[in-house]
This record gives sequence, C-alpha cells and structure tokens, in this order.
Amino acid sequence: MTATTPEHSPNIKIWWEDLVVGQTRDLGSLSPTREEIIAFATQFDPQPFHLSEEAGRASVFGGLSASGWHTCALAMRLMVTNFLHETSSLGSPGLESLKWTRPVYPGDVLRLTSTIVEKRPMSRRPDVGLARTLWEMYNQHGEKVLHMDGYGMFRRREPGVDRP
Amino acid sequence: MTATTPEHSPNIKIWWEDLVVGQTRDLGSLSPTREEIIAFATQFDPQPFHLSEEAGRASVFGGLSASGWHTCALAMRLMVTNFLHETSSLGSPGLESLKWTRPVYPGDVLRLTSTIVEKRPMSRRPDVGLARTLWEMYNQHGEKVLHMDGYGMFRRREPGVDRP
Repeated sequence: MTATTPEHSPNIKIWWEDLVVGQTRDLGSLSPTREEIIAFATQFDPQPFHLSEEAGRASVFGGLSASGWHTCALAMRLMVTNFLHETSSLGSPGLESLKWTRPVYPGDVLRLTSTIVEKRPMSRRPDVGLARTLWEMYNQHGEKVLHMDGYGMFRRREPGVDRP
Repeated sequence: MTATTPEHSPNIKIWWEDLVVGQTRDLGSLSPTREEIIAFATQFDPQPFHLSEEAGRASVFGGLSASGWHTCALAMRLMVTNFLHETSSLGSPGLESLKWTRPVYPGDVLRLTSTIVEKRPMSRRPDVGLARTLWEMYNQHGEKVLHMDGYGMFRRREPGVDRP
C-alpha cells in the first residue's frame, strides 16, 4: 500500500501538525429537499416515516423526516467540501459516538461545526497522526440534530519528528 | 406527535417484547458496484480515494474504496429490508460506537449480522422499549468491515405492563 505523497497532493494546505486542539470551524450549511430525503430513503432506509408525509405524520417524528444516515452523509459532504479537501486526510477508523438528537425535515437548513478535541501521533505509523473531532449539526431553529465524536487520520508534514 | 398505532401497522410481526437478548440474525448480503461507490461519493464524500481507481491506489486503501457512510447506508438497507420492515421500529437515538475496520471495494460481497445485546423499557415512554444491537458486516473473505453498537426504539405490544 503506497500512501499519498506530497508530490501527489499539491492542494494540501493543512497537515496533522496544523490541526489545533480547541479550534472550532464553521463548515457551512445545506438544506435537503423532500425529493432528496425520499430518494435517499428509497435506496438505503425505506422505513415508512422516511418515505411519505402521511407515514411521517403518523410516526414519533410528526412528519416526513430524513434517514439518520442521510443526515450523516450531508454532514460528511460539508466536512469534505469545506475542510477535508484541502487537508492531508487519510480517512477515518470510526466514531466514539453518534447521536441523532432531533428529526431532520425537508427544507431544514443544517449547519455543521467541527471542533478538534484531541490529537496524537499514530503509534504504528510515524507518518500519520490522529485527530479526535466533535461534529455538531444544528437546524435553522438552533436545535442540534446530530452529534458525532470521531477520529480522523491525517498525514504528517514531517513524519515522526516527535517520536523517540 | 401521534405515534403509529397497531391499526396503522398491520404488518408488524415483531414487537419490543419479542426481541431476545443474545439472539443473532443473518440479515443477508449485497454487493456495491464501482458505479454505485463513485455515485455515493460524488454526492456525499468526494474524497479522491472514493472517486477513482488511480487515487485509490495512491491512498492507504490501495484501491478505489467505498465511503464509510456508504457502507453504513448499505448495512441499514439490509437491516430494514430483512428485519425492521416487519417490526415495530420507531427509529434510533444513536450509536455507542462505529468502526470502519477494513476498506470496502467494488464487488465485495457484504454480509450483515445483528445481535441484540441489551433491552430495557424507555423511562419516559411506557409504550416504547429500547434494544441495544451489535451490527457486524463482513466481506467475502470473512474480514469484518463494519462494527456498530447502537440503540433502536421499538413500540411495545403491551405498553408499560412491567412498570410500577
């Protein structure tokens, strides 16, 4: 497995060393339409309350609501477009927690912020560092709809310089 | 918010009371194509290693690989089609953990199993119970690609009969 080298990644502006614990970023917003919500659910999460207004109204959500996986995918889109695309991101091993705290409805305006809460070198890979990040997504009423706490792997500008 | 009643849900065969701690279900398999992997990533996770073989080969994944969110969405599809559709499922408040343990490549055959590890009444809702479930997805080589540990809410057949 050959890793991406700086030569192959002329657009990288942010490396692991540049990530600052405590820093919060506004990663912008987007708004899923009714059609997008139904299309995602039809493909991946065809539960009635994600497919029609009628079934949504009859559910605990009180209306047609987006699949939680759709909400995660929308958060990822903002994360990639407004941050990761200019970083040395190498993907993620996973999340410590994921909470769908409120339903997402058609036309909601969803804004994502990210906060780096921890970073450390990766023990097995002197050229890679981990960053633990909170993802928080809010709707237009200021209500949190998504809370995630997860890890990202980032290539280091200077591999292993702080290792013994 | 009006909840789904049995009158509106003639297809429910499995209620919260019917979920058995320790029970493992085989939820079937599916296989994402190259085109599906690229389409999902284009919409939601446009990182280079999810968009082309060339960038995939140059990444830590060693080839074009699916977005982790795509893997989750595929697991959800199996969960809904082969289990939740005949249950009293009311959605999920979230996950305790999510691990992407191996890359997913085009043509991989992904098989999902679920195991119920805990269940309890929901304190605020005598008509609803929680079930904590492990989701484990394996590829055709027997390698685990996804591990999730999360909660589902299920309507009870007999609301609150075991509450004081």
